Amino acid sequence: PFSLIPLFLSHVLSVPALLSQPGAASYTDSSDDETSPRDKQQKNSKGNGDFCIKNIKQADFGRREIEIAEQEMPALMALRKRAQGEKPLAGAKVVGCTHITAQTAVLMETLTALGAQCRWAACNIYSTQNEVAAALAEGGFSVFAWKGESEDDFWWCIDRCVNLEGWQPNMILDDGGDLTHWIYKKYPNMFKKIKGIVEESVTGVHRLYQLSKAGKLCVPAMNVNDSVTKQKFDNLYCCRESILDGLKRTTDVMFGGKQVVVCGYGEVGKGCCAALKAMGSIVYVTEIDPICALQACMDGFRLVKLNEVIRQVDIVITCTGNKNVVVREYLDRMKNGCIVCNMGHSNTEIDVASLRTPELTWERVRSQVDHVIWPDGKRIVLLAEGRLLNLSCSTVPTFVLSITATTQALALIELYNAPEGRYKQDVYLLPKKMDEYVASLHLPTFDAHLTELSDEQAKYLGLNKNGPFKPNYYR
Amino acid sequence: PFSLIPLFLSHVLSVPALLSQPGAASYTDSSDDETSPRDKQQKNSKGNGDFCIKNIKQADFGRREIEIAEQEMPALMALRKRAQGEKPLAGAKVVGCTHITAQTAVLMETLTALGAQCRWAACNIYSTQNEVAAALAEGGFSVFAWKGESEDDFWWCIDRCVNLEGWQPNMILDDGGDLTHWIYKKYPNMFKKIKGIVEESVTGVHRLYQLSKAGKLCVPAMNVNDSVTKQKFDNLYCCRESILDGLKRTTDVMFGGKQVVVCGYGEVGKGCCAALKAMGSIVYVTEIDPICALQACMDGFRLVKLNEVIRQVDIVITCTGNKNVVVREYLDRMKNGCIVCNMGHSNTEIDVASLRTPELTWERVRSQVDHVIWPDGKRIVLLAEGRLLNLSCSTVPTFVLSITATTQALALIELYNAPEGRYKQDVYLLPKKMDEYVASLHLPTFDAHLTELSDEQAKYLGLNKNGPFKPNYYR
Amino acid sequence: PFSLIPLFLSHVLSVPALLSQPGAASYTDSSDDETSPRDKQQKNSKGNGDFCIKNIKQADFGRREIEIAEQEMPALMALRKRAQGEKPLAGAKVVGCTHITAQTAVLMETLTALGAQCRWAACNIYSTQNEVAAALAEGGFSVFAWKGESEDDFWWCIDRCVNLEGWQPNMILDDGGDLTHWIYKKYPNMFKKIKGIVEESVTGVHRLYQLSKAGKLCVPAMNVNDSVTKQKFDNLYCCRESILDGLKRTTDVMFGGKQVVVCGYGEVGKGCCAALKAMGSIVYVTEIDPICALQACMDGFRLVKLNEVIRQVDIVITCTGNKNVVVREYLDRMKNGCIVCNMGHSNTEIDVASLRTPELTWERVRSQVDHVIWPDGKRIVLLAEGRLLNLSCSTVPTFVLSITATTQALALIELYNAPEGRYKQDVYLLPKKMDEYVASLHLPTFDAHLTELSDEQAKYLGLNKNGPFKPNYYR
Amino acid sequence: PFSLIPLFLSHVLSVPALLSQPGAASYTDSSDDETSPRDKQQKNSKGNGDFCIKNIKQADFGRREIEIAEQEMPALMALRKRAQGEKPLAGAKVVGCTHITAQTAVLMETLTALGAQCRWAACNIYSTQNEVAAALAEGGFSVFAWKGESEDDFWWCIDRCVNLEGWQPNMILDDGGDLTHWIYKKYPNMFKKIKGIVEESVTGVHRLYQLSKAGKLCVPAMNVNDSVTKQKFDNLYCCRESILDGLKRTTDVMFGGKQVVVCGYGEVGKGCCAALKAMGSIVYVTEIDPICALQACMDGFRLVKLNEVIRQVDIVITCTGNKNVVVREYLDRMKNGCIVCNMGHSNTEIDVASLRTPELTWERVRSQVDHVIWPDGKRIVLLAEGRLLNLSCSTVPTFVLSITATTQALALIELYNAPEGRYKQDVYLLPKKMDEYVASLHLPTFDAHLTELSDEQAKYLGLNKNGPFKPNYYR
Repeated sequence: PFSLIPLFLSHVLSVPALLSQPGAASYTDSSDDETSPRDKQQKNSKGNGDFCIKNIKQADFGRREIEIAEQEMPALMALRKRAQGEKPLAGAKVVGCTHITAQTAVLMETLTALGAQCRWAACNIYSTQNEVAAALAEGGFSVFAWKGESEDDFWWCIDRCVNLEGWQPNMILDDGGDLTHWIYKKYPNMFKKIKGIVEESVTGVHRLYQLSKAGKLCVPAMNVNDSVTKQKFDNLYCCRESILDGLKRTTDVMFGGKQVVVCGYGEVGKGCCAALKAMGSIVYVTEIDPICALQACMDGFRLVKLNEVIRQVDIVITCTGNKNVVVREYLDRMKNGCIVCNMGHSNTEIDVASLRTPELTWERVRSQVDHVIWPDGKRIVLLAEGRLLNLSCSTVPTFVLSITATTQALALIELYNAPEGRYKQDVYLLPKKMDEYVASLHLPTFDAHLTELSDEQAKYLGLNKNGPFKPNYYR
Repeated sequence: PFSLIPLFLSHVLSVPALLSQPGAASYTDSSDDETSPRDKQQKNSKGNGDFCIKNIKQADFGRREIEIAEQEMPALMALRKRAQGEKPLAGAKVVGCTHITAQTAVLMETLTALGAQCRWAACNIYSTQNEVAAALAEGGFSVFAWKGESEDDFWWCIDRCVNLEGWQPNMILDDGGDLTHWIYKKYPNMFKKIKGIVEESVTGVHRLYQLSKAGKLCVPAMNVNDSVTKQKFDNLYCCRESILDGLKRTTDVMFGGKQVVVCGYGEVGKGCCAALKAMGSIVYVTEIDPICALQACMDGFRLVKLNEVIRQVDIVITCTGNKNVVVREYLDRMKNGCIVCNMGHSNTEIDVASLRTPELTWERVRSQVDHVIWPDGKRIVLLAEGRLLNLSCSTVPTFVLSITATTQALALIELYNAPEGRYKQDVYLLPKKMDEYVASLHLPTFDAHLTELSDEQAKYLGLNKNGPFKPNYYR
Repeated sequence: PFSLIPLFLSHVLSVPALLSQPGAASYTDSSDDETSPRDKQQKNSKGNGDFCIKNIKQADFGRREIEIAEQEMPALMALRKRAQGEKPLAGAKVVGCTHITAQTAVLMETLTALGAQCRWAACNIYSTQNEVAAALAEGGFSVFAWKGESEDDFWWCIDRCVNLEGWQPNMILDDGGDLTHWIYKKYPNMFKKIKGIVEESVTGVHRLYQLSKAGKLCVPAMNVNDSVTKQKFDNLYCCRESILDGLKRTTDVMFGGKQVVVCGYGEVGKGCCAALKAMGSIVYVTEIDPICALQACMDGFRLVKLNEVIRQVDIVITCTGNKNVVVREYLDRMKNGCIVCNMGHSNTEIDVASLRTPELTWERVRSQVDHVIWPDGKRIVLLAEGRLLNLSCSTVPTFVLSITATTQALALIELYNAPEGRYKQDVYLLPKKMDEYVASLHLPTFDAHLTELSDEQAKYLGLNKNGPFKPNYYR
Repeated sequence: PFSLIPLFLSHVLSVPALLSQPGAASYTDSSDDETSPRDKQQKNSKGNGDFCIKNIKQADFGRREIEIAEQEMPALMALRKRAQGEKPLAGAKVVGCTHITAQTAVLMETLTALGAQCRWAACNIYSTQNEVAAALAEGGFSVFAWKGESEDDFWWCIDRCVNLEGWQPNMILDDGGDLTHWIYKKYPNMFKKIKGIVEESVTGVHRLYQLSKAGKLCVPAMNVNDSVTKQKFDNLYCCRESILDGLKRTTDVMFGGKQVVVCGYGEVGKGCCAALKAMGSIVYVTEIDPICALQACMDGFRLVKLNEVIRQVDIVITCTGNKNVVVREYLDRMKNGCIVCNMGHSNTEIDVASLRTPELTWERVRSQVDHVIWPDGKRIVLLAEGRLLNLSCSTVPTFVLSITATTQALALIELYNAPEGRYKQDVYLLPKKMDEYVASLHLPTFDAHLTELSDEQAKYLGLNKNGPFKPNYYR
């Protein structure tokens, strides 16, 4: 039987991503007692106790956070308005497992407004905003999550969402695949009533494709990770800003005149390179794919092998999704003061393990910043111990989270309402038209005015006036 | 029965694209007599007369043009070298119908080096470089093409390529679909021996998809127009430069501080916008597709409807592929001196016909530049009468043509050597790996050094070390 | 008699600029006792007690900070090396009043290596790094400074630097003019032996020009604030980076697609606009000077009056050096969520006082971030209460401080060694050649290789081979 | 006695700059007879014959050119309007020597509208637009100029402007210093009545400073070449566009991915580098001045010595004002196909003479494009034989000429109306306020709206509300 363990362990334990969310800095739990939430008996003001969170008394503070997030998630608010007449999720019983943040709360309350019932757990043991969880519990949601869960707590919470007498989910919203895995492992029969899975993460999507390939996927699944809108925002546009932010917050480095090598010229690399070039850095690129390599050339970057420039660069950034891109041999040859960081997929791109040897001294100089010191006194500045810089040392803008959450909501609606047989037991991309709809819901933020096709033009182009406007492969 | 006539007419007659090729300016035909090539009896120095061109005496001049082009088409030259050992096109009988230029000559001589026999006609009645045709004839090619063919000549030349006792083509290389159409119409039995069609143009590809949809496509066809490399170069990178070049050569306009509206934010629009922004113009964008619209916003352009800015802009550029984007109503409201031009697909984007009314005066102020004058004295500067600015008023770099020609050669090799059954009677995109190979052949031009995956990395990524490196939908 | 009081008060009390220096975050004083340093008797390890600082025991920690700073101030280190043979400041007795930071320590130890004796006070009551002061005291410097001085302490420290039996300064290094003011007021006779003043700040320079105009300046003074190198780095290059950093750290705003108005297109405005444009913002500019206005146009920014765009922008940034640029009327008309901040000269650009009215609610949401809430619920996000964003919410890179410190050292050398009569009782800019020398000392950081003129070329251009290369007015 | 001969010879003979003006291409002189204008007797329609031009019959065509130019020179037209009430040049007798183009005609007619009388000659033997000269003669101007003057004609024309019974100039408007030189040499007494000289060119300004230094300048002179507005437009903004235009028109080179070295990082170099970087080239910079070198670093360019990159670059551009920057040694080491051109001050930057040796073959491949061929077949592409690329191979936008002409008009007004003694016998820069005024007159072109200082703000800044707003040294 297959096992998700190796996968989820790294996933659950290594991504304290949203801890540094906007606003997160402003509240403290220091006055909280040390009792485990599992040992507490709490009820909300209406007497409901079907939840397990840190402290229901923090609900007011959490509510304010949710209200602020609502202001920056106009697309979900627009969905709520349109739902006043119809309830496209009426009858839906959604079990969810995601980061529990103010933005997630806006999503959950939107799903409820659309007609769904929800039960929710956290997909990461560190990332829950306790105040938000409290506000959700106070609002009647069955939430099982707190910041600082043990691994045992983690699975217990998930189980509490699923395993309830008289309540059986018919939709899954997952981020990382752990919830899906749990149901596969413990309650496989539950899939008989489940209409579909919506999965958000690279890891989880990868798992689903493996299940599908192995013929073991027993419901339709929607891969929302690869929708155009989400991809561009999570990668190109978001990284264009977060590379600068992450480097500044950790090192205060001046970008002007710095020599930088960026490993990988996919969407993430493209974003990093564009930003650094704009700030006056001299940027070199390494690539394995000749098409991306040619794009780097045309965009004005010298395409090199790492060993050609490793002695001269001031900053090394990995964006490959690959492993062991920056190995000890390269680290040995870097110059004094060189900054090394990772913007790619996982923490394998820099071979950090190779730096844990006796002759090298580690000095923690700031949060997320280590100096690794060679016997001759050379110092390498390693950020976030090789984990993702943008998740560890900067923040994800609410606007990006809004796109993700809207995509998730639409994917749930699509799967829940699809006529019998439209979706088989396979993994699907969000239909182009839905992707376009997510984009259109975010245009008012920019006061952007879309042009409409005339009937004559639509006919000429062979398009429906309401889209989709591009083939599925268009990026 | 279907008819290609309406399509090909506009195609054949309206695209004098490569007339302005580099070098084209330097030779003149003025000393040539007026006799039609069809009435001449010419032989090359080896006594061969199986061709029909303007003047065999121009062969030396044409040869020099070909040699210069060879220097800038290193990928084809590399293919020739690799072909010294094997002849992947041995036995291939290729009939071609493309622009006859020095770059095409390099392609044809490469195909021959790879083992093919070739017969060739022009896909456009204006675009043949007579000297190059002469050099090809002198070199033993059966070429049927000259600059300034009549429509009757055009079809006669195509027929002479195909209709030869004892020679039957087994591969088609087409640019616009006219050759394919002719064989469909006149010699449908010929398809029995044809292994495949390689088609280069938007128009021709569109036709092939229609045939396929109608179940009438009887051989496999390769759509090389939509390969990633070609698309990016023909559109994004090439237009980024040619928009500036086309505007400067025609109007000498200063870009700094100018207000410009670009209609359409696909690859062409993205290229135009990036270039103009970089030169200090203030750029507005119109779009119908919300995804492209959101990209425009994130790239720093105000997304507007045309009527919001039409009174204030200095330049209007269409890049939509649509029709009647700039209609008379908008032209009436533009300010004095406004420049209007088209970078999109065809000459329908600006409603030029609506300007042919008695109250408006046309004044030709330069080649490709008209002032259209309103009764109150207002002048609109219309470029290339609404035809494609970059083809009419600037040049296509040899580097871009090199990518196209290499793609065509590889597509021929792929189709010709594919095992029985790999390709059905359908339209295919070039396999990703071939696309990557085209790119890799062009990297040395930039002294660009590709990184190779280690075995361990390839395994980790689940990739073959030699590619393909990305899914097919990656752009 | 003239009075500096109104000036220095704002100066001393309002610029806690360097508190956020790199590294500053990493040490804490929490274990320190509350005794005033003036009441303590401390001696360094050599028995010297001619200083007054917080805690001599912190010297080791301070020494490490200084060593790290040395690595990033190669120009001063190069000066030290060149000084091994000659001592251009031999006999100089420098009294200084600047921020007491690791970078200043590198400067002071360089001056000593060049032959000078130094006594030093802080120019700001908050900005002293106590550990660095301890390391300086341990190293034998007479330092009188600690973090959190009272105003009385402030003047007492300055007096202790100057008023010492048997020690009379002959050079002044000032930052803000307070030290100079104190000597003018208390010990005017001291100027008889003083060879010159080196002044760093806008405020101090302004004072010196006023003194000069009034005929009251009795020694030569060097305005190092207006040297080309310093200006470009403090303003254009530094602000290009710090505007992004300051906004991100405070608000996590996403720049892409945001509409921003920048008031003022001097060097600071140019830097801000370039950075935001590069990140995908749509930037409008306001200006009073038609030359700068025309530059904004040519650089691709719409030049508007504030009232034309105030309702639509997402961010308002002042860079004018003027007062009341953003007044209540404009604040009233901004949209919900608009961010308002100041990158200009002082805290007068935004009329913050006008927001302290009963109908508006202030809510501190983060350090340096206030929400000002209108009765209808509209929130304006005010950063640093209108004080300088880049000093309050980001950091000044050591590289910029290195340029400033090197300029100060060279200005001291120039004034101290100038032949009698070269400098009158006036305010001077650093000679162009010195400015060029500062620049040249910083080129190795970028591995930049300067070209040298041949004799023939120097003659042709009418230049000395060693510079100066440009007229004084060149920027 | 001093001699201008070496200077003016190169000046007069080598700058056929404005021949390629917009519109210039559209009229032909082919129908003109070959008679020298000096041998013709022509009168305008009012019977006036005090001029000497090619053909008075071309006046109508020239008038249309002038009218078109008027549309793009709004600043001069605005001056005319303001002059309807007052005539600031009433009584002025201006003798001028400039290029005779439509733009100059707009200037001359503006001076007349302001009250001046004008007599005019050409400053270049090739650059006169005959039709414009005809229109001016028809309009009553005493013009002495035609295209294709001999050197003797050149001085004869100048003499005819000056040497007229009963007419003595009191103002000089010169471009190159030849007119000034002629009066110095032939009619030195004339300076007694001359109120001032306005000089436009680098060469002429250099001469004036030499005269001033030698104590021989006997009237005030205004250096309009160095006004901020003109400098930025002639250099930074204009070259940013013309480097791309000049390279494209001559070579059709694709910029993306090309490696380029730009010699010199002054205003011209800054413009070239910015444009090429924006188009995707990889740009290296060489500099002699450490301040400009540091700017290049901060702007993201690798600062190198030419020999470090000469083997690898695709394009070499000189922008130094120096001589022998690219010498034979470097040309020998360039790679095949390298493009070499000059954007700097004169034709000395590339040592073209060193390429005129027997072992090298020159091949003219296009107008302004030579291939220089080494014995091994290597070809260097030399543009404009090393003369100024932007003057030879692109055009100067009317907007730039408008700024120059407006500056000249204001300088004449300033000198003519200055109270006795304000200007001594020296060379002056245009007062800052006038410079600002020129800028302000060009803002409406961009629909740009200037902000006005309030009384309170002006007082705070210590500025007059109407300017000047910056110190004189501000650039």
